Amino acid sequence: MCPDQPGREPGSAARESAARVPDHAGRRATLRSILMEHGVDGLLVTDPANVRYLTGFTGVCAALLVCTWDTRTAEDRTVLATDGRYRDRIRAQSPDLTAEIAGAVDRRLVELAGEWKLGRIGYESHVVTVDQHRGFLDQHTGLDFVATPGLVEQLRVVKEPYELARLRAAGVAADGVLATLLARQALRPGRTERAVGMDVAAAVFEHGADVGAREIVVAAGRNSAAPQHRPSEAVLARGDLVRVDFAVTVAGYHVNLARTFVLGPPTDWQRAAHALVERSRAAGMAVLHAGAVAAEVDAAARAVVAESGHAKLFVHPFGHGVGLRIQEAPGIAKTATGTLLAGVAVAVEPGVYWPDRGGVRIADTLVVRCVEAGGLEPLTNASTELIVVG
Amino acid sequence: MCPDQPGREPGSAARESAARVPDHAGRRATLRSILMEHGVDGLLVTDPANVRYLTGFTGVCAALLVCTWDTRTAEDRTVLATDGRYRDRIRAQSPDLTAEIAGAVDRRLVELAGEWKLGRIGYESHVVTVDQHRGFLDQHTGLDFVATPGLVEQLRVVKEPYELARLRAAGVAADGVLATLLARQALRPGRTERAVGMDVAAAVFEHGADVGAREIVVAAGRNSAAPQHRPSEAVLARGDLVRVDFAVTVAGYHVNLARTFVLGPPTDWQRAAHALVERSRAAGMAVLHAGAVAAEVDAAARAVVAESGHAKLFVHPFGHGVGLRIQEAPGIAKTATGTLLAGVAVAVEPGVYWPDRGGVRIADTLVVRCVEAGGLEPLTNASTELIVVG
Repeated sequence: MCPDQPGREPGSAARESAARVPDHAGRRATLRSILMEHGVDGLLVTDPANVRYLTGFTGVCAALLVCTWDTRTAEDRTVLATDGRYRDRIRAQSPDLTAEIAGAVDRRLVELAGEWKLGRIGYESHVVTVDQHRGFLDQHTGLDFVATPGLVEQLRVVKEPYELARLRAAGVAADGVLATLLARQALRPGRTERAVGMDVAAAVFEHGADVGAREIVVAAGRNSAAPQHRPSEAVLARGDLVRVDFAVTVAGYHVNLARTFVLGPPTDWQRAAHALVERSRAAGMAVLHAGAVAAEVDAAARAVVAESGHAKLFVHPFGHGVGLRIQEAPGIAKTATGTLLAGVAVAVEPGVYWPDRGGVRIADTLVVRCVEAGGLEPLTNASTELIVVG
Repeated sequence: MCPDQPGREPGSAARESAARVPDHAGRRATLRSILMEHGVDGLLVTDPANVRYLTGFTGVCAALLVCTWDTRTAEDRTVLATDGRYRDRIRAQSPDLTAEIAGAVDRRLVELAGEWKLGRIGYESHVVTVDQHRGFLDQHTGLDFVATPGLVEQLRVVKEPYELARLRAAGVAADGVLATLLARQALRPGRTERAVGMDVAAAVFEHGADVGAREIVVAAGRNSAAPQHRPSEAVLARGDLVRVDFAVTVAGYHVNLARTFVLGPPTDWQRAAHALVERSRAAGMAVLHAGAVAAEVDAAARAVVAESGHAKLFVHPFGHGVGLRIQEAPGIAKTATGTLLAGVAVAVEPGVYWPDRGGVRIADTLVVRCVEAGGLEPLTNASTELIVVG
């Protein structure tokens, strides 16, 4: 039986409506029931992505207080705080919420919770710094601060129809960016990595998306041996492997796409290197579906590389969740715990990197589905074969 | 007597050499003497900008352990940790340091400090989360963790010749971007804010710089009323105020520049609004020099706006420090404490925003200097007058 989540994929009419607007109030209601299970009277949310998920507000300075204390007026007691720069944005993006304008947004909400004599208040101990926490205690509000890490992140793991619609749009844009680069022959000898990087950014814009929260990677020749490489003044040359790796966002939702090209006829080694990563990818994808143990998916992809004697050159996990952050739960790694749920969006990015020689990575983004539904829904669909350019 | 820092501006030959390469080892030596004053045997540095300042390493996953424990071999006991993705980059950027490759970089360095029986170890309590700190204690290393916030930030306030050279280059690039936009008539009726935003990014690239760590703002018409505004599909129209606000980096050092234009002949109100912000800017600049009380600089600029009856519409501080971060110490705000030092780089950004009507901001970046040296060295030099475009 597939562990799909009932209600996440409603009938077509309801689905269409649910895909149009995010239900922030519904998300807060779900959070409130989780807070009650944790025995707290409220949660102070200070992670910007979590605030955005619960309110739609995108300002970089933000904190949110969600109360369970008085369920009848619980929504009235939901307060979003930001600073003066975002007065207009908060009104436009979160008109349903009480807004506070303050210098220190977190301390203002703690003060408010103290005035309301909330009692036990949860806080995001995986985000709040030691000094911030000490500051809360020094306010002497009489509140009892309880570490409740990851509660909102847990809600964010399985994507709703609204989120899936944005992720699909981001996937279309990412494929479009790659097609545009190829159509314009952006990858050719004599151009610099930086120039190609700029082309990627411009193409992301042309396809109506935004550049995601990670460096655009353009890595040519020996530079491709580094899994993370900032585009440099290095010049693309005939015979080079060239890796292009980028993330695009639509309404904040990230999709990652990476391909490795070769400038001119590939050598046997280049063909073999690319084929190895393709096989690793296929092995991981073959066991990737709802209910799969995340660590086993990583292991399946890694086994292919190990068999070829290159285990040590696959230096990062097979994949990870994506959403409002380019990297979020769940991990698909050696050390991952737990199984993958239907409706989770993940980037899969097998890569093998030969020091001082070159590396290949193939990254795609997909939604985990039940085996009965094919196991996965690809969001990016560019060919995974080695493409000769230039 | 000007509180300039002797030795920060050496003679021309020495200055030239000091401007070429950053002296990471020298910075670590200075830090070590501060650590000894604080009575700790080492510092665990986990803020990425601080790690970069002390080592040159730019990977997003990084932690650094700086020891004072055994001064003779202190540098041998400086360990930089990152994950497998950055193996090559760490070798290239920080060849002088011992590198550790680990999954959890902070915990690996705590483990090492424990093995070395360091005793008292400082940590960045303004950066380390509550959960991270609990994790350190749970490692049972026998170390005594001491909260030592802001020690490296304190070193970063006054810029060295190397840093000033990069800031100057970033200033030239920022001015160049604005000139390019004007030369290409990028601001004209019918174009979208997003299209102009993309032009800004492209021009930053053409001028050899990188886009800084903040949103590019292009805000037209009523959108200009928001101090922070993400470029939208809104179309520029004749009669609009259009604000363009962006940051560029060179070698990681940020310079901020913002100008407000008008599309076609300005109305009396637009002229008056712009003139008000120009006067506010001039008032702040007139009292901005080494030794000035930061809060008084903010007050001088704010007084001009208050006299016109618009005090509440100047919704953010007059300025703030810039460097490896777009916003760092010192603040030039109502609540700022302390005086400005010579050699500090600051963005000054007076702005007045009329709700539902429009707003004007003029932002520049400069280096604070002694009164004898003119009080300041501008890094951006674009005209501050209202420019009519379109």
